[in-house]
Amino acid sequence: MAKTDGDWKIEAKRLRGKVRKLKERLAGSEPDAAPAQTPAKVKAPLPVSPLAPKSFPALPRIAGVSFAAVAAGVKYQNRTDVMLVSLAPGTAIAGAFTRSSTRAACVLDCQAKLAGPIDARAGAAIVVNSGNANAFTGKAGQRSVDLVTGSVAKALGLPAARVFSSSTGVIGDPLPHDRIIAKVPDLVAALDEGGIEMAARAIMTTDTFPKGAAAEIDGDGGKIRIAGIAKGSGMIAPDMATMLVYIFTDAKIAPKLLQKALSSQVDDTFNAITVDSDTSTSDALILAATGQSAAAPITSLRAGAGAAFVQALHDVMADLAKQVVRDGEGATKFVEVRVTRAASPEDAHKVAMAIANSPLVKTAIAGEDPNWGRIVAAVGKSGAAADRDKLSIRFGDTLVASNGWRAPSYREEDGAAHMKGQELLIQVDLGLGRASRTVWTCDLTHRYIDINADYRS
Amino acid sequence: MAKTDGDWKIEAKRLRGKVRKLKERLAGSEPDAAPAQTPAKVKAPLPVSPLAPKSFPALPRIAGVSFAAVAAGVKYQNRTDVMLVSLAPGTAIAGAFTRSSTRAACVLDCQAKLAGPIDARAGAAIVVNSGNANAFTGKAGQRSVDLVTGSVAKALGLPAARVFSSSTGVIGDPLPHDRIIAKVPDLVAALDEGGIEMAARAIMTTDTFPKGAAAEIDGDGGKIRIAGIAKGSGMIAPDMATMLVYIFTDAKIAPKLLQKALSSQVDDTFNAITVDSDTSTSDALILAATGQSAAAPITSLRAGAGAAFVQALHDVMADLAKQVVRDGEGATKFVEVRVTRAASPEDAHKVAMAIANSPLVKTAIAGEDPNWGRIVAAVGKSGAAADRDKLSIRFGDTLVASNGWRAPSYREEDGAAHMKGQELLIQVDLGLGRASRTVWTCDLTHRYIDINADYRS
Repeated sequence: MAKTDGDWKIEAKRLRGKVRKLKERLAGSEPDAAPAQTPAKVKAPLPVSPLAPKSFPALPRIAGVSFAAVAAGVKYQNRTDVMLVSLAPGTAIAGAFTRSSTRAACVLDCQAKLAGPIDARAGAAIVVNSGNANAFTGKAGQRSVDLVTGSVAKALGLPAARVFSSSTGVIGDPLPHDRIIAKVPDLVAALDEGGIEMAARAIMTTDTFPKGAAAEIDGDGGKIRIAGIAKGSGMIAPDMATMLVYIFTDAKIAPKLLQKALSSQVDDTFNAITVDSDTSTSDALILAATGQSAAAPITSLRAGAGAAFVQALHDVMADLAKQVVRDGEGATKFVEVRVTRAASPEDAHKVAMAIANSPLVKTAIAGEDPNWGRIVAAVGKSGAAADRDKLSIRFGDTLVASNGWRAPSYREEDGAAHMKGQELLIQVDLGLGRASRTVWTCDLTHRYIDINADYRS
Repeated sequence: MAKTDGDWKIEAKRLRGKVRKLKERLAGSEPDAAPAQTPAKVKAPLPVSPLAPKSFPALPRIAGVSFAAVAAGVKYQNRTDVMLVSLAPGTAIAGAFTRSSTRAACVLDCQAKLAGPIDARAGAAIVVNSGNANAFTGKAGQRSVDLVTGSVAKALGLPAARVFSSSTGVIGDPLPHDRIIAKVPDLVAALDEGGIEMAARAIMTTDTFPKGAAAEIDGDGGKIRIAGIAKGSGMIAPDMATMLVYIFTDAKIAPKLLQKALSSQVDDTFNAITVDSDTSTSDALILAATGQSAAAPITSLRAGAGAAFVQALHDVMADLAKQVVRDGEGATKFVEVRVTRAASPEDAHKVAMAIANSPLVKTAIAGEDPNWGRIVAAVGKSGAAADRDKLSIRFGDTLVASNGWRAPSYREEDGAAHMKGQELLIQVDLGLGRASRTVWTCDLTHRYIDINADYRS
């Protein structure tokens, strides 16, 4: 039955109301200003994390280190996805890797190479691809590693035992190593001492910004420089090192001492962050020291330039670790969890991680709800010694709870005001002992689910 | 400027297109058919879980047990929020409680009362409120428990040591015990042997359906009946029992044997579920046996009626535990994780829980993505012994991965088809030993975040 003109007018007005209501519903269900089509398929580039640094930092060139990146089409199209780092003869190398029992072929390969006899006179190289983790790929996975590292070794005139590799991306798919090998000549031709940012971009997966950090100290007779890059955004609960991290320095330092410096700083940096409590099969941190600084060799880490070097290394590692949290999938808040006066260091770590990994704490933070009861529950479930009547909780510096009870001075508005910030501090004092632990995490938002409900397809 | 009639027609057609597009966008961003205003504030009632049973089951009356529920306005308005259970003289009582170190005052009180000397000739009672957990409420919390249980004891003529209480809801707010005490006369007046469903509704918080289960066995000389109710939806990673569970039976059985029967079944039922890895401060399970069955007393759990009783109790507990998962906050998929051939029972549990709690596995399930690589990663991070080349993974009965590699027979379509179901099975065979473990969980969806980013306000 045909409509009269009057009918059309009524219909149009009805539809206007409907459009308004639907728009309101959409505004309520899409918490942030994502393009409309993003949530369903996450095909468009992810918006840059609101917690990202303003720009990639200016990193110093490290004598003896050069970088290249190419687009090999491992999985992603229209972007770089393989990086090569060339390291001059005499470079000392140290590493830290995931303790996952299902670690990837390239991780096992790096560990074997670092454990073997090292010819320090040879140069070295690191080749990394994104888009495919080459994890749980059976014997074919090791073969891919051999082929890729062998190809790089041949092109650079290095022993294969001095070529380290990492792969990051989807687990369980065979690595299309031919695509990488085909690009090795291009990579070698493109090596450039100034190419570190390009390299940082090539190793990104769900990262929304490249991560870099640097430090410089005065050695005995010259400057010592450190520059590092990292990737990581999800599957972040490192159990040795996080995702992929490469740090370079021109320090003169023996491999064993370099490893000692690195190992001493992993716990308070990469092992102190968590995005989603999931530990990767591929976590790898490689630290390379070219020895090309004019400064005297570092022979002790306890004092002078050695101690300064360890501190600078810590700063670079902590900076990169925090950048990984700042790029946590879907993150809108950066959260420091500081636990003090625990009965033991293990207890302090347990409590801090129980809070940092609690989905209920993380969703409350996403909702800007100062729901401190969920922090109490997280302390309770941690398995660490805790006494309700001795613990206290602070949001920022505001005392929220103590003596087993909400603090009389606490006003909900103060907690709510702290929650509105982008950088949050949760302090839990257990009042039992002298151990403390600080970890960093982010909130759990709709975007984490958007990204992870459909990452592969 | 006034529109002509023709303009209205064009306008109406344009608006129709707009409505269609907006509806499509909404369908993409709202995973299930929620009322429009729900996501932002969760003020409207939550839609019933798609995994809910069709209706509350018909539960048998248990002689010697009667129920009442009232609306006391503890926190929620316009709904019942306090339940009272009256138990006849001679009732044996057993319990299982959270091991959280920050457990609530009522949990500590129940544990103390069950550990103390029990006068079996006295009756007993259970009083439970929703809306406030009376947890982390300091000494005032214990006082509230004393006042509420004391008031019930007086009204029913019972020793206070025989009145058990639970509280569930927000942590850290003082319990408005006066509102509950004011309703005690109404509760006592309303006691009804047929009131179990009413009681199940009164203890709900973010639950979207009341949970009940029953079993009946032939004892020696008569039937023995078991009926139970539970509440639970979020903060579900029980470490002894989950949330609140009350099970009643008319069996004649001594308290110690009843406790033994209960304790033997907790691990495979309530300790085998997880919604979000967060353990509550308030988990409590109370099992009451009135002894009013015509059947002979149960004096052993090993054979005959005693063994049948344990099996029936297990069935009721497992049914209630799975209903809690089916009402997991935001759940759209019910997932059984079955781990076999682990090196030890502890390892089997670690692997099963690592998979069931992995946000990456749970979001992949929400997205119907057969992303088995994330299962590999969860196995790897669990800390349990695992050998990449010996483990195998199945979705339902479909072999996905074995021999450290994707199974040659596996087709992605088969995995994807399984993922589209509402009841999923993930099987991981570790190929190392003889221990196995089955746990139940649900997916992690946008609605979990909707519910938890703003539960309190």
